[in-house]
Amino acid sequence: MSVNTFGRLLRFTTWGESHGPAIGAVVDGCPPGLAIDESVIQPFLDARRPGQSKFTTQRQEPDQVRILSGVFEGKTTGTPISLMIENVDQRSKDYSDVAKAYRPGHADYAYDAKYGFRDYRGGGRSSARETASRVAAGGVARLVIPEVTIQAWVSEIGGDAINGSVRRQLIETVAGYNKLTDGSPWPTMQENPFFCPDPEAAKRWEKIVDDARLAGSSVGAVVECVATGVPAGWGAPLYGKLDADLAAAMMGINAVKGVEIGDGFAAARLTGEQNADPMHPGANGPEFSANHAGGIAGGIATGQPVVVRVAFKPTSSILTPQPTITREGEATELFTKGRHDPCVGIRGVPVVEAMMALVLADHKLLHRGQCG
Amino acid sequence: MSVNTFGRLLRFTTWGESHGPAIGAVVDGCPPGLAIDESVIQPFLDARRPGQSKFTTQRQEPDQVRILSGVFEGKTTGTPISLMIENVDQRSKDYSDVAKAYRPGHADYAYDAKYGFRDYRGGGRSSARETASRVAAGGVARLVIPEVTIQAWVSEIGGDAINGSVRRQLIETVAGYNKLTDGSPWPTMQENPFFCPDPEAAKRWEKIVDDARLAGSSVGAVVECVATGVPAGWGAPLYGKLDADLAAAMMGINAVKGVEIGDGFAAARLTGEQNADPMHPGANGPEFSANHAGGIAGGIATGQPVVVRVAFKPTSSILTPQPTITREGEATELFTKGRHDPCVGIRGVPVVEAMMALVLADHKLLHRGQCG
Amino acid sequence: MSVNTFGRLLRFTTWGESHGPAIGAVVDGCPPGLAIDESVIQPFLDARRPGQSKFTTQRQEPDQVRILSGVFEGKTTGTPISLMIENVDQRSKDYSDVAKAYRPGHADYAYDAKYGFRDYRGGGRSSARETASRVAAGGVARLVIPEVTIQAWVSEIGGDAINGSVRRQLIETVAGYNKLTDGSPWPTMQENPFFCPDPEAAKRWEKIVDDARLAGSSVGAVVECVATGVPAGWGAPLYGKLDADLAAAMMGINAVKGVEIGDGFAAARLTGEQNADPMHPGANGPEFSANHAGGIAGGIATGQPVVVRVAFKPTSSILTPQPTITREGEATELFTKGRHDPCVGIRGVPVVEAMMALVLADHKLLHRGQCG
Amino acid sequence: MSVNTFGRLLRFTTWGESHGPAIGAVVDGCPPGLAIDESVIQPFLDARRPGQSKFTTQRQEPDQVRILSGVFEGKTTGTPISLMIENVDQRSKDYSDVAKAYRPGHADYAYDAKYGFRDYRGGGRSSARETASRVAAGGVARLVIPEVTIQAWVSEIGGDAINGSVRRQLIETVAGYNKLTDGSPWPTMQENPFFCPDPEAAKRWEKIVDDARLAGSSVGAVVECVATGVPAGWGAPLYGKLDADLAAAMMGINAVKGVEIGDGFAAARLTGEQNADPMHPGANGPEFSANHAGGIAGGIATGQPVVVRVAFKPTSSILTPQPTITREGEATELFTKGRHDPCVGIRGVPVVEAMMALVLADHKLLHRGQCG
Repeated sequence: MSVNTFGRLLRFTTWGESHGPAIGAVVDGCPPGLAIDESVIQPFLDARRPGQSKFTTQRQEPDQVRILSGVFEGKTTGTPISLMIENVDQRSKDYSDVAKAYRPGHADYAYDAKYGFRDYRGGGRSSARETASRVAAGGVARLVIPEVTIQAWVSEIGGDAINGSVRRQLIETVAGYNKLTDGSPWPTMQENPFFCPDPEAAKRWEKIVDDARLAGSSVGAVVECVATGVPAGWGAPLYGKLDADLAAAMMGINAVKGVEIGDGFAAARLTGEQNADPMHPGANGPEFSANHAGGIAGGIATGQPVVVRVAFKPTSSILTPQPTITREGEATELFTKGRHDPCVGIRGVPVVEAMMALVLADHKLLHRGQCG
Repeated sequence: MSVNTFGRLLRFTTWGESHGPAIGAVVDGCPPGLAIDESVIQPFLDARRPGQSKFTTQRQEPDQVRILSGVFEGKTTGTPISLMIENVDQRSKDYSDVAKAYRPGHADYAYDAKYGFRDYRGGGRSSARETASRVAAGGVARLVIPEVTIQAWVSEIGGDAINGSVRRQLIETVAGYNKLTDGSPWPTMQENPFFCPDPEAAKRWEKIVDDARLAGSSVGAVVECVATGVPAGWGAPLYGKLDADLAAAMMGINAVKGVEIGDGFAAARLTGEQNADPMHPGANGPEFSANHAGGIAGGIATGQPVVVRVAFKPTSSILTPQPTITREGEATELFTKGRHDPCVGIRGVPVVEAMMALVLADHKLLHRGQCG
Repeated sequence: MSVNTFGRLLRFTTWGESHGPAIGAVVDGCPPGLAIDESVIQPFLDARRPGQSKFTTQRQEPDQVRILSGVFEGKTTGTPISLMIENVDQRSKDYSDVAKAYRPGHADYAYDAKYGFRDYRGGGRSSARETASRVAAGGVARLVIPEVTIQAWVSEIGGDAINGSVRRQLIETVAGYNKLTDGSPWPTMQENPFFCPDPEAAKRWEKIVDDARLAGSSVGAVVECVATGVPAGWGAPLYGKLDADLAAAMMGINAVKGVEIGDGFAAARLTGEQNADPMHPGANGPEFSANHAGGIAGGIATGQPVVVRVAFKPTSSILTPQPTITREGEATELFTKGRHDPCVGIRGVPVVEAMMALVLADHKLLHRGQCG
Repeated sequence: MSVNTFGRLLRFTTWGESHGPAIGAVVDGCPPGLAIDESVIQPFLDARRPGQSKFTTQRQEPDQVRILSGVFEGKTTGTPISLMIENVDQRSKDYSDVAKAYRPGHADYAYDAKYGFRDYRGGGRSSARETASRVAAGGVARLVIPEVTIQAWVSEIGGDAINGSVRRQLIETVAGYNKLTDGSPWPTMQENPFFCPDPEAAKRWEKIVDDARLAGSSVGAVVECVATGVPAGWGAPLYGKLDADLAAAMMGINAVKGVEIGDGFAAARLTGEQNADPMHPGANGPEFSANHAGGIAGGIATGQPVVVRVAFKPTSSILTPQPTITREGEATELFTKGRHDPCVGIRGVPVVEAMMALVLADHKLLHRGQCG
């Protein structure tokens, strides 16, 4: 399997660097006959687009996606869909610092250790800019799973979490147990630049993120994502488990350091009785009284909402100089000049949703392939 | 990619059910010329073997592994290594309860939803018994990476964690920063049935686990694993990232609900300064002043210890009856008779180590393939 | 992808050497609910089994297949099906000759060059004995494609071909254009030990093969295979083309040196007009006036019979000593003692059929996955 | 594995249709540090470029390749290399005929049967135009295997073969047994538009191809390809065999219907003695007295020249109307207007070379990964 390819039947391959002419994704294995054009994908890119508030990087990228293949007369043909996004705002700057020494917390040293060589302009291939390609691919994946609603939000910034009852209400109302929503996002999420469903928390986060920004510092975040409408049966034990694939999908996003399904680490502190998800007959089939499992058992969807939590570390780019070494191994100090996100987790929300869509769409096809 | 196959260049495929005649793994892609026989693999299986204390299931399985292919004159030949473990203690019991209704928290309902059909004897394919195959395969993988030392331990049971300073000392001493150990395990881990490095915690856990056992209940656990000696450069961005592959490997283990690399979710609560891993020149190459990243940046090993934390939910098999439904959708109650682990995380330790070995061995070959 | 694994959704992994304790295959991705037991697979192994006439090797192997997993209550469960065949007749003999020097025409030298090491007993992994595993896996694959009838035959031995009109009649009658047969094999094929549909040719081949056998020599063969009932649409351009997958499947069989689809090399000598396959409306959908293409266009099945021709070289094991070199690079001579097939292509018939079934079953699932 | 992706470690994914804005390939897994820019790849595209003589299609495409990623400061970085070729000469024409009915011999009907839908402009995805992407990817692959020399030629057109002694001399001189050449192509091949090494045949072919062109007809061809310098040991039994991968690579090229390795079908007419490739000690290691096997035994390279023969059917686009059916299943007639190659095999030469390079480069990395 290609290391820059993700998925089994619905697969995407991404290419491109932060400061090259363009980035892109090739989506292969898409079912034919789905209605698509650029306008279907663009809104997801717009949600991820930088420079929309003072809480994200000021790099100005229109992130206009072009479909170069795989679509004819407004429908997918079943052949590879090539998506391209031009890099526009590649500010010409002096990269001699980062060319010579390794930015701590970044992948600079690791890339050099692996390849003996790296494109140091803006992080090259390791830049979070690549996630735009995933979001574009995710826009295609969503077409494959119209039965599924995906909603992510920031649930914690700098250790400050949203209100627990808002969170529960959100999961229960928007996502519901075995109940499909109409797909409209939680209203308050549209009213703040944090994808935050709790207006009180959103206010507090303004100060937290702005303080970090002004101090040249950064903060971490936790993103939650719920997918409802996933039919029981998607998933593929034992090494194509739905939760394992989601774990890989999320852990592979830039700056992610932890992934939980359902109760995650909290489940390790429960007893078997507390963690049980009892079943009972419901109006439209089996229902569950709880969802500690996050909608997945034995690697297979149970029909409950699929719940994932993702931890983003604070942005490694900070203004405080850090000890590091040069390519020749000499001691030096480095701080990150230039534009960056004070909290990279915020713009992670559309990326997490995209990866959720891509994993689910792949498993829909995989399940259909084996089980008809 | 096969859904019961894991890995890219060093790959293993497992087969077998809890109550079939045998289980096994086929390991493909192993380098030739490595010294091997059953005695090299058996100790890892013995560590995972059930029935060794009252804190694990009383099913008695010798778990004797046989090598059926891929080895000649005591060395690997480069061809597939077929490993087989016979199922011996398949107690003939009455399965009519679990045949008719779904055990809550188990994969019964999900398997039926997927396949329309399931082997209900002891959980069939979804039984944790399959992990013996992974441990056997992991024994082969370790031969591929003699430069790496892998050590896992239980760091928390039922919410009761080991002493923080013991934990730090363990990581620093056994694993070390850029310092290889002689491979001997932390002494106290051998003196208790919990793979617990903290003797005080081990004492407390005796009561916690025994209470759960006597009450027919269960408790969760957190397992940590450190791999030292991993050279900077292993890993493969962007969809074959070392941390993403580890996340999939660990999340795919039975009962696992969360995975962290390095500081994991705690990193989401740090500032950029607190989370920095500054570098400086060392006697034998670059050294790091901290390892919040858990040894991986941009999906590539940095040369620091690779640190993973894994959350195991409490065993779903408990004696308290739980509401559930029959295959026909009628309400009923079910409790799990028979033998089970009161804390499935304990025997997860050798499994976590095996998956770590399998991921690292695969990435060693993958790196050598691309970068020479 | 594992190098000892074939297929995408229906995949099989084989293991085992000529003189190890057993050989086997793990079939993954099989749809659930298919009726199966050993008796369904055994007839295909019996057809391939050695020692049934003087025209094949005298090694006596019962080739009894055991199903070790993936089946419950007589049906496939959707989990890996482990198939094992014990090696029974591993005559203890002196291997010092082949241990020291390379048998010309065999893979001995190549294996040593690759692995620095080889299991020299009976060819080890490179022995045609492995094809029994393919045949067993093919038995499972046939269950996945009940709509398809597969029939192979030997069409040429030692340059002596079957009667052209018999061949045409065979393809038209047994296979038919867009007409399914009842699956019964061409009668005369059961009446001779050559899978030969032409009784006149069968008589001539008796002498050809027996002469070769008595002279310690060997002859080559051409095997043809037709699959009818393949629905238009199976196949997957551009690098999962049905014909490309068939080419790989057939070329990977021991001793195969050429593969043709439809008219194959003869098509290179036709004009566009001669090679055309015009279409016209038929009673049950489109019909074709010819099938030069062998049922595949653009890598996708057209609904016509899929026709493949496979060239088997003469067995490399001959009694005439051949110049060769020792492992140390010294000149020596070697001839092959022991039991061998004077015409390895004969027993290739069930293997070719098995590979056809495995490719088609995989593509059925792949098509269903993408196109529903 | 993606169906539009080829390879294991060095992999390429192609995208694009005949009449879309562009076509392209993403090459993943390339080793870092190889010197590259567009000028390294362009000559191979120029060799395949249409419109260079009256014997190929008159479509005028400059086929200028652009590298969009994966290269920095003139060297490969180890990240995906995105190659794009714009479609320039998409003549606006009336496609209503081919939109309504299926061109016989083309993939029109099969695409519709599969996807329910097709891009009918110029064949869409099934157009041989896609092979430009392969040739571009092959240009990258060649950089990975500097030790290998690859040379293809047309050995037969319309049943008229090159002189046998020229062919033997060519294989022996240019390719040599175990002797590397300096890479210069056989001189006469540059002096005719057929990649023909035999000046006499080239003269005869002028008439054959021109006659076909003037008659609105077409002829088939056989292309041969030899790779020298392939080290013994490349290849990977049993389902990643070098010859099986070559068979898939070649059979997947548009219009190819047959593939032979070494003597191919002719080997089926030899005795074991005639087909033997005896070995003897040579000045620089083992040498072979013959190469019936085409440089591959047991799926592994022997160090001899790798010899492949590929049959191209006559172009399906001819001016003689052929019976066919409409999308609604009504009888009609269709002939192919517009520009086409009277002998598609001629421009297949650079494509065959590219696929040879891609397979060999992949196996070099695969071998290095497993065997060091």
